[in-house]
Amino acid sequence: MASRAHPVDGDLSPATDGGDLPIKSSPHRHKVGIPPKQNMFHDFMYTFKETFFHDDPLRHFKDQPKSKQFMLGLQSVFPVFDWGRSYNLKKFRGDLIAGLTIASLCIPQDIGYAKLANLDPKYGLYSSFVPPLVYACMGSSRDIAIGPVAVVSLLLGTLLRAEIDPNTNPDEYLRLAFTATFFAGVTEAALGFFRLGFLIDFLSHAAVVGFMGGAAITIALQQLKGFLGIKQFTKKTDIIAVLDSVFSSARHGWNWQTILIGASFLTFLLTSKLIGKKNKKLFWIPAVAPLISVIISTFFVYITRADKQGVQIVKHLDKGINPSSFDQIYFSGDNLAKGIRIGVEAVAIGRTFAAMKDYQIDGNKEMVALGVMNVVGSMSSCYVATGSFSRSAVNFMAGCQTAVSNIIMSIVVLLTLLFLTPLFKYTPNAILAAIIINAVVPLIDIQAAILIFKVDKLDFIACMGAFFGVIFVSVEIGLLIAVSISFAKILLQVTRPRTAVLGNIPRTSVYRNIQQYPEATMVPGVLTIRVDSAIYFSNSNYVRERIQRWLLEEEEKVKAASLPRIQFLIIEMSPVTDIDTSGIHALEDLYKSLQKRDIQLVLANPGPLVIGKLHLSHFADMLGHDNIFLTVADSVESYCP
Amino acid sequence: MASRAHPVDGDLSPATDGGDLPIKSSPHRHKVGIPPKQNMFHDFMYTFKETFFHDDPLRHFKDQPKSKQFMLGLQSVFPVFDWGRSYNLKKFRGDLIAGLTIASLCIPQDIGYAKLANLDPKYGLYSSFVPPLVYACMGSSRDIAIGPVAVVSLLLGTLLRAEIDPNTNPDEYLRLAFTATFFAGVTEAALGFFRLGFLIDFLSHAAVVGFMGGAAITIALQQLKGFLGIKQFTKKTDIIAVLDSVFSSARHGWNWQTILIGASFLTFLLTSKLIGKKNKKLFWIPAVAPLISVIISTFFVYITRADKQGVQIVKHLDKGINPSSFDQIYFSGDNLAKGIRIGVEAVAIGRTFAAMKDYQIDGNKEMVALGVMNVVGSMSSCYVATGSFSRSAVNFMAGCQTAVSNIIMSIVVLLTLLFLTPLFKYTPNAILAAIIINAVVPLIDIQAAILIFKVDKLDFIACMGAFFGVIFVSVEIGLLIAVSISFAKILLQVTRPRTAVLGNIPRTSVYRNIQQYPEATMVPGVLTIRVDSAIYFSNSNYVRERIQRWLLEEEEKVKAASLPRIQFLIIEMSPVTDIDTSGIHALEDLYKSLQKRDIQLVLANPGPLVIGKLHLSHFADMLGHDNIFLTVADSVESYCP
Repeated sequence: MASRAHPVDGDLSPATDGGDLPIKSSPHRHKVGIPPKQNMFHDFMYTFKETFFHDDPLRHFKDQPKSKQFMLGLQSVFPVFDWGRSYNLKKFRGDLIAGLTIASLCIPQDIGYAKLANLDPKYGLYSSFVPPLVYACMGSSRDIAIGPVAVVSLLLGTLLRAEIDPNTNPDEYLRLAFTATFFAGVTEAALGFFRLGFLIDFLSHAAVVGFMGGAAITIALQQLKGFLGIKQFTKKTDIIAVLDSVFSSARHGWNWQTILIGASFLTFLLTSKLIGKKNKKLFWIPAVAPLISVIISTFFVYITRADKQGVQIVKHLDKGINPSSFDQIYFSGDNLAKGIRIGVEAVAIGRTFAAMKDYQIDGNKEMVALGVMNVVGSMSSCYVATGSFSRSAVNFMAGCQTAVSNIIMSIVVLLTLLFLTPLFKYTPNAILAAIIINAVVPLIDIQAAILIFKVDKLDFIACMGAFFGVIFVSVEIGLLIAVSISFAKILLQVTRPRTAVLGNIPRTSVYRNIQQYPEATMVPGVLTIRVDSAIYFSNSNYVRERIQRWLLEEEEKVKAASLPRIQFLIIEMSPVTDIDTSGIHALEDLYKSLQKRDIQLVLANPGPLVIGKLHLSHFADMLGHDNIFLTVADSVESYCP
Repeated sequence: MASRAHPVDGDLSPATDGGDLPIKSSPHRHKVGIPPKQNMFHDFMYTFKETFFHDDPLRHFKDQPKSKQFMLGLQSVFPVFDWGRSYNLKKFRGDLIAGLTIASLCIPQDIGYAKLANLDPKYGLYSSFVPPLVYACMGSSRDIAIGPVAVVSLLLGTLLRAEIDPNTNPDEYLRLAFTATFFAGVTEAALGFFRLGFLIDFLSHAAVVGFMGGAAITIALQQLKGFLGIKQFTKKTDIIAVLDSVFSSARHGWNWQTILIGASFLTFLLTSKLIGKKNKKLFWIPAVAPLISVIISTFFVYITRADKQGVQIVKHLDKGINPSSFDQIYFSGDNLAKGIRIGVEAVAIGRTFAAMKDYQIDGNKEMVALGVMNVVGSMSSCYVATGSFSRSAVNFMAGCQTAVSNIIMSIVVLLTLLFLTPLFKYTPNAILAAIIINAVVPLIDIQAAILIFKVDKLDFIACMGAFFGVIFVSVEIGLLIAVSISFAKILLQVTRPRTAVLGNIPRTSVYRNIQQYPEATMVPGVLTIRVDSAIYFSNSNYVRERIQRWLLEEEEKVKAASLPRIQFLIIEMSPVTDIDTSGIHALEDLYKSLQKRDIQLVLANPGPLVIGKLHLSHFADMLGHDNIFLTVADSVESYCP
């Protein structure tokens, strides 16, 4: 293995003498390397590439003939040209089964989710017909199942309702929904094309867990209307208003037949989910359970005419495929601005909660596909669709091979729209409510919350803040809390970097944080501090002040113990990847104030960018080139021979 | 020196054999320390302290009797009780000279600066009377000279004028100015008291240099009105509108007598500045030059009656000290909100450009002093005052000993207000213009801009963006550009941390960036990557993808050179100070994808927080505790013995 390697020795080998012998001076001290100067253009291009093309998406295009490049380009935009060529009957079998499974799952969900967005049930089905077809041509993941999802539907409904009342102005409301969907698509495509997707990755995992849990509970609470057969229901979403509405209607508004149907089928759904969880091979049981529930309950209501007993039913579901809606999109006026705003918000949220993040695919290319899909969708009566967590998992387990499973699902939805919608007439609303409750239960991720609690208490506070914000106030406030906390965390990270006092680990030349390694000992007369971040304007003053405080504290300790006074302050710069002019000023200030107290400032292992800038700004000259070392050990060795 | 120290050896000692001998296994491998568990409260308090009390302001209060603590507290809020007790005649001599010097400098400046804020000249003088008195009791710096400053006056004028026209509504304008000053003070005091000053340190040094340069040119251009004796002048501040206004008035609007007076005294002022720069001992020449200019020019106009020739003069300056203005502050209505907004903006800018930043004093305590001073000021007809860069420097050089120099200045201003204002009647406006031009010239810091250009090209673009934004559009747009660029930089820092491939520096056990140290060699079969930032939700995906790209590139190289395939991927975690659940997920994903390709993931030197979290989340178990090492050298040694 190590035949070509230079020897890696000495680091942890025992000292020749365990104790107090003076340290021998190294015959060849290594200089801190100054990287070759780059010109401005090269510098800029490097930063540009690392920022926007860190995954080197054009890698495959290098050194290829023109015709091949064209083919690769086509395949890159339409992956169907890639996997389509090797498609065969065996793959189709897998896709067919997976497609049928997710279709059986999505049809009842779609009808319910459309209601969360305050839209007619048919728009849910529409949105599971056109977008999956577009995605099948352009998307690069084979597992992802496309369609409306619960959280985005709820958020879109909340945002749209804030602008237009869906009950008094249903037509305008619908037009605004299409407008928002159109601009959601445009935003996604633009962010993806310009590789700016990372700009909207601004929610911390903890905030997402909290928000999702809160949204799930909010969605489940909204289902109590259908589940309990309540006629008068609040339009607010906070838990207090909803429970108040539920209990105040308890005397006359509940319908026991509805509750009976809803409760028994919810039990059935939850049981089947449990079975699927226990035995991964039986994943198809929870997958088909919703459709079975719909069929049985519809048939049951039809023969018992339970709707005459007050059991609310779907009543009417339009037949026929998506009508064109291009002329419905607002391209001018007030509603244009509203549509853009809501669309952009929906994208930001949709992206954060989308299933894509867990797949190792090119996020930016994926966003272009989703964007085109929503633009096309908005012109064919669909509202915002994205990748669904739960259905994607089922798709994968059902053995999908390619995006054809989305096409199969799309065809099933098409057939449903063409022929089967009248059959939904007697489907009780309670069943749809039960299906949605069942679908959002996994969003309440208690395991994740426990892990967050264990790993980071501050993160847990963020998680709970978002959670309670959603359930006690509103979805938007919950989101605002989640975003604010995430930003506050970024701000803290940037303005308050960590610093640590280092000590020498016995019998090595390694210097480590003395809090982590209590056995590490400090060299008398020397204080070694590691700064754990780039030094920028945002933290340069803090870093300087914190270092001075470490020094002050150490000096007090040294004085109390009558040890030799501190003569050298070594800053271990390994983690300091960059420095700006403010940072250099802070070092200058520190150097000057130390000089007054006769303490020598020493830098250990400044990185390539830092050493370059220290030279350019002449701070290296001010400090003295002899006071910049490759390692902490090296500098200690130089000063305390 | 090193008598108590453990030996620091081996690190750079030559290998026993220069070349290909297998590396000997170390008999005692150090474990990665896991810090003792902290409870939630302790954890929270530590973070809280490091965030808000990193400078340990209560240090002096520890272990003191109650009475002493009270005294210390009093001295902390009113430092005058501290330095006042040892005040003596010798110190007073220094303060007297310094106070007289800065008074002679500030009086003509004040009159001009008030005009930048679209206020009567007397408000400039008012603001140099009350605020310095308050500061003298509460401020902790002895050098800082208090009063109106050019950039804040310009910005306040711009913000106020956007709300109320000072020509048609002078009374309301004045009231809004007091309201903004009041809330500027309240904001300062609150931020200081809650130790949140760092929240508004959001402008990078480069952006500040650009903004200041642009503001200086904008201020100088505004002075052309007085300097050239133009009667009709544009109200816009951008260079094109101003120059257009200047040249279109050239035929009939300029007054040669005015130009003659202005130009000769500007030459005098600039020459005296040059003399002061060449010989630091003659600093008093530029300090008294403005007052001398005022006296001579006023006398000259008085005897020649040049004002009859079209030379514009001050004409009228109210006699008497600051009237109360408490009842003028808006505490309700629309103007309250406007006043708050403008006040907060003025603070944010004032703080960024304040002289305080360069002094090593407690920034938060200082903000409380400034805040109280502006609150009191707003009630006594003053507008926003702060520490002046240029006058503080003069104060220092004139030998000020304590804040008494501010009191002396204040008394001189008081005497001026009481007795000397009528003398300003014949002062030509051209002189005030020349004094202001002379005062803002040092704000154009070409040296700093050149340094920024040399050190960081991207920073230079930020600097120029702010500069051209101010001079070509407006002060607010320039500020917006400066803030946006600064934020973008923070965002980049957080979302795109650096990573580096490490190699072994020959004859050492040190691993360093191979780009910085071309002599560093990579160990065959091993790829070592250092991640240079905490791994959080904001960058976890990027870090994972970037590591995978390094691996891919390295594998291609290895393949091309027919070297042994890569079996170990070592991540040097020293700079990774923290990790959150998203970051742990990213490591898990990386581990799994490497496992599929039969590559072992190895971690080197995770810090105290990171190792604790890796254990709690069971990632350490998944990875295997044997795959976490203290150093890179240690892990290479283990795998390639």
